[in-house]
Amino acid sequence: MRLMQTVEFKNKPRIIATGTVAGPKECAGIVGKHVDKTLDDDKFGESTYEKAECKMLAFAISKTIENAGLQDKDVDMLVSGDLLNQIISASFAARDFDFPFLGIYSACSTMSESMAIAAAFVNAGYAKKIVAATGSHFSSAERQYRYPLELGNTRPPQSQWTVTGAGGALIADKGSDIAITHATFGKVVDFGITDVNNMGAAMAPAACNTILKHLKETNRTPDDYDLIVTGDLGALGSRILKDLTWEKGVDIQKNHVDCGEIIYNVVEKEFQGGSGAGCSAVVFNSYIMDKLKKRTINRVLFAATGALLSTVSSGQGESIPCISHVIAIENM
Amino acid sequence: MRLMQTVEFKNKPRIIATGTVAGPKECAGIVGKHVDKTLDDDKFGESTYEKAECKMLAFAISKTIENAGLQDKDVDMLVSGDLLNQIISASFAARDFDFPFLGIYSACSTMSESMAIAAAFVNAGYAKKIVAATGSHFSSAERQYRYPLELGNTRPPQSQWTVTGAGGALIADKGSDIAITHATFGKVVDFGITDVNNMGAAMAPAACNTILKHLKETNRTPDDYDLIVTGDLGALGSRILKDLTWEKGVDIQKNHVDCGEIIYNVVEKEFQGGSGAGCSAVVFNSYIMDKLKKRTINRVLFAATGALLSTVSSGQGESIPCISHVIAIENM
Repeated sequence: MRLMQTVEFKNKPRIIATGTVAGPKECAGIVGKHVDKTLDDDKFGESTYEKAECKMLAFAISKTIENAGLQDKDVDMLVSGDLLNQIISASFAARDFDFPFLGIYSACSTMSESMAIAAAFVNAGYAKKIVAATGSHFSSAERQYRYPLELGNTRPPQSQWTVTGAGGALIADKGSDIAITHATFGKVVDFGITDVNNMGAAMAPAACNTILKHLKETNRTPDDYDLIVTGDLGALGSRILKDLTWEKGVDIQKNHVDCGEIIYNVVEKEFQGGSGAGCSAVVFNSYIMDKLKKRTINRVLFAATGALLSTVSSGQGESIPCISHVIAIENM
Repeated sequence: MRLMQTVEFKNKPRIIATGTVAGPKECAGIVGKHVDKTLDDDKFGESTYEKAECKMLAFAISKTIENAGLQDKDVDMLVSGDLLNQIISASFAARDFDFPFLGIYSACSTMSESMAIAAAFVNAGYAKKIVAATGSHFSSAERQYRYPLELGNTRPPQSQWTVTGAGGALIADKGSDIAITHATFGKVVDFGITDVNNMGAAMAPAACNTILKHLKETNRTPDDYDLIVTGDLGALGSRILKDLTWEKGVDIQKNHVDCGEIIYNVVEKEFQGGSGAGCSAVVFNSYIMDKLKKRTINRVLFAATGALLSTVSSGQGESIPCISHVIAIENM
């Protein structure tokens, strides 16, 4: 028989520092006062959006290490991935650093997958200091997944806006009070949604699946957490998640928040809010982490969510399989 | 200071079964007598090459579980990735199975990265049974990375032929004599090669880097291994690897073999041999594993190699960053 999907980390690996960067549109919202760097120019001085995305991710990794008071030579590993084909942002960012690199892909749940793997490795003693990081860029995502920006396509009301930003976290064996206590590894869930503009609806069942599994396996309730943070379900996806969990007899209403739903101040062209691997990477590693550091909140369940589609799979008539990896974070 | 890149697995996780499938061209070569299934039709009854690739991977996962005498409900996790954009083969294959999924991307070093993560998780007691798997398809790779097949482009002599095939391995806490004793996690190495038809030359320095690091950190020599198996350097890349290691004072000449160099019998249109994530997945999990089971060989160093480029990175003038993750396998 299978073991549980949840692993408890007995050695309580710590998040000792984070590093974040975001674009001007993102920094007009709640993360503006919390990120390490706000970009005035969303090309970050580069000639292409893809190079800008890679530079943001490399910046987030460097800043994370710097904020931990460490140098590159102290870091044992980087766990990273991103949305671009063949995760080039992560691979090319990793080239800048002289430590081992584990490439992962989990779409917009990359932040929690990378933190879960990093915590698992640190907990087992394989490493003492691992950087988990990811990011995304509105313009490179539009170009790859949707239409040329120059076309000026109208966006449907159920759509979200890919976040321009990157974030990293340094997971270590000691060095702070903020510990990763559990990881619940998600299964692929596909509810048959085929509308690529409605990612929130596609991802909500995956978030529901792993969150409920986590609560059941740890014998906890939503009240055990000050915040249950999903990645980028957006406003519509968040409503669906609340409905789905409610139907299963679990009420997450009063302590659920979605990074995509809260990242933008003015919901005008962003409709349902933010999305992209950078969304939860920026919100969690700046806004949420600052609350944890100040002990405004002490227990967080972080469930980033990923839609595992590609333009080819959609073009071939496939629906959108989704996943959510969950980690539990606690102030000791 | 950083820890070593090499992790020793004290609990010696085992490879208890493998499962493989390959196309007709591949099965005309050395793997023909060793794979579980030979495809007569490289579309595997599907309407597209991408769907065929996904079906091969799902077959390899199922066959691995069946060959281990297990059922899906016994498996704790799948660690998988592939070459297609957003690793759709792995994600859609994972949808068929009701166990957690860790998506990874490491190009053609996916087989050793997935086995390394699986062994790390089993060794730490997070899981008892994990399937590590990957695959590739000549026609989906050509379409995505190069030219439409219908164009009939001439291939340059330094090129390799993407393997149509998939392979999986079941890593468990017990159940066979074949153990994964070490993993050495690779760094990204970029020697400035920009010719996307010359992957072997680009990847050889990465293989050299991790293999030498492994030997140094374990205080071993090439003679401690019956075989040092690289993934898909091909004939030219293998020669470069031998030169590079020789220059560093390490002679791997007499026990080195490259999956890409040996997979095809007739080197006519394949030039330097095979490549793709499926290359080492098929050769290692069929041909090499059969030798380990028969104890013809007892100690293998497996260094799959990956080129972390995309069509966008090459189009924007970037060189090819490469990586190699290494695992040591030993008959107990």
